[in-house]
Amino acid sequence: MQAKNPTACVLVIGNEVLSGRTQDANIRFLATKLGDLGIPLREVRVIPDIAETIIATVNEVRAKFNYVFTTGGIGPTHDDITSECIAAAFGVPWEPHPVAWARMEKAYKPGDFNAARQRMGTMPRGAKLIDNAMSVAPGFQMENVYVMAGVPRVMQSMFEWLAPHLEGGQKIEQRAVHALGLPEGVIADGLTAIQNRYPDIDLGSYPFYRPTGNGVALVAKGTSAAEAEAVIAEVTELIRSLGRTPIQGEAPE
Amino acid sequence: MQAKNPTACVLVIGNEVLSGRTQDANIRFLATKLGDLGIPLREVRVIPDIAETIIATVNEVRAKFNYVFTTGGIGPTHDDITSECIAAAFGVPWEPHPVAWARMEKAYKPGDFNAARQRMGTMPRGAKLIDNAMSVAPGFQMENVYVMAGVPRVMQSMFEWLAPHLEGGQKIEQRAVHALGLPEGVIADGLTAIQNRYPDIDLGSYPFYRPTGNGVALVAKGTSAAEAEAVIAEVTELIRSLGRTPIQGEAPE
Repeated sequence: MQAKNPTACVLVIGNEVLSGRTQDANIRFLATKLGDLGIPLREVRVIPDIAETIIATVNEVRAKFNYVFTTGGIGPTHDDITSECIAAAFGVPWEPHPVAWARMEKAYKPGDFNAARQRMGTMPRGAKLIDNAMSVAPGFQMENVYVMAGVPRVMQSMFEWLAPHLEGGQKIEQRAVHALGLPEGVIADGLTAIQNRYPDIDLGSYPFYRPTGNGVALVAKGTSAAEAEAVIAEVTELIRSLGRTPIQGEAPE
Repeated sequence: MQAKNPTACVLVIGNEVLSGRTQDANIRFLATKLGDLGIPLREVRVIPDIAETIIATVNEVRAKFNYVFTTGGIGPTHDDITSECIAAAFGVPWEPHPVAWARMEKAYKPGDFNAARQRMGTMPRGAKLIDNAMSVAPGFQMENVYVMAGVPRVMQSMFEWLAPHLEGGQKIEQRAVHALGLPEGVIADGLTAIQNRYPDIDLGSYPFYRPTGNGVALVAKGTSAAEAEAVIAEVTELIRSLGRTPIQGEAPE
């Protein structure tokens, strides 16, 4: 369904998600926002703060996807190495960015723009700045790679600034219906038949187990709202034919 | 620090995380449990329900890491294609697994073990079963690839069964201290000096912005608890020398 839409990959850079210390909060935000822009997220990688890994991964995914968004590793400390790794990936010098550097020098009190903070004003040659409302230190863009902060509210602020500058495709429309007490194994054959009739729609089946009851959520996605609705109408009939009450929309959390 | 420990990669298979519909709940669980077993998680990939992508990714990461854990795509519906993709990745037939098939046939009422459910008893030739307390349908192991359910409580049940069978390394010890009101840019130079003195410890700096106050958490990880504690003792002194009050342990959420 998404053949004509540009594709995106998100790279989460940092040991804190891989160690289990931190619950990632950026993937879902970016997935949702990119879907709205018609830039479906096709892959996510979470990788550690290891230079060779970052450089190799960036070079692999920037060749493979239309857009790459990185989060994390652009702060002032020794474990923030994303920026110099992006320079290495593109084979360009890592040097003071005239605009970012001047802006930061002005923002800090005399003497406070120290060596550590100067790292945040240092970027791959040719970087375009990504502004944000939360912090004086910007993210940056190198070709199709967008380098953002890892702290969710700073990342979100950068992405909101960035969104109007991205060239998207058709919005991915999503419609859903759910049914309580219906095992997937009972509805599966009927779903396959519907999916086969609508090759441009991605029909997903997601069982849930909640204190309010178990059941299954059926979700139709595609660039055509009319087709997504037609699929959900057929799934709704299927649920009724199996003796259950279809409930429109997502199941409650 | 983790040179002698076996390494792990997690593959999250499924469109629901990539579309933003679902907040992943498996990565952090596996990251934490694997760290406790001394099997540090070194990479996570989230990939869609597309056969070529699953097959290529499985073959890439099973050659690269000691352990690969997949979540998702082993249910009865048309979008559950992980199992046959694993067979394709290993170049073996996908066929009824004698034990799993017999067990499921017995568990369902006559006539209820339909074609859709039979898919869950069909596995790559040579698969070893991964049991679980939640569901009659098992996960399975092929060499160093462990194939588990995507529903968190089923996955967790499978992993708990699996854990005693995994050969781990030295547990990754983690110690932390945090400081309120301390910008990373002020402490960065001192942290670099400490990190340089302890090459076997991974010292991370994680700023936080919370209603209870902003600050930074400093986390030391490695296989030596004594070294991790020595690093945190030095960071504690550093925080004091910068006029802040160090607070042992993690910052409150």
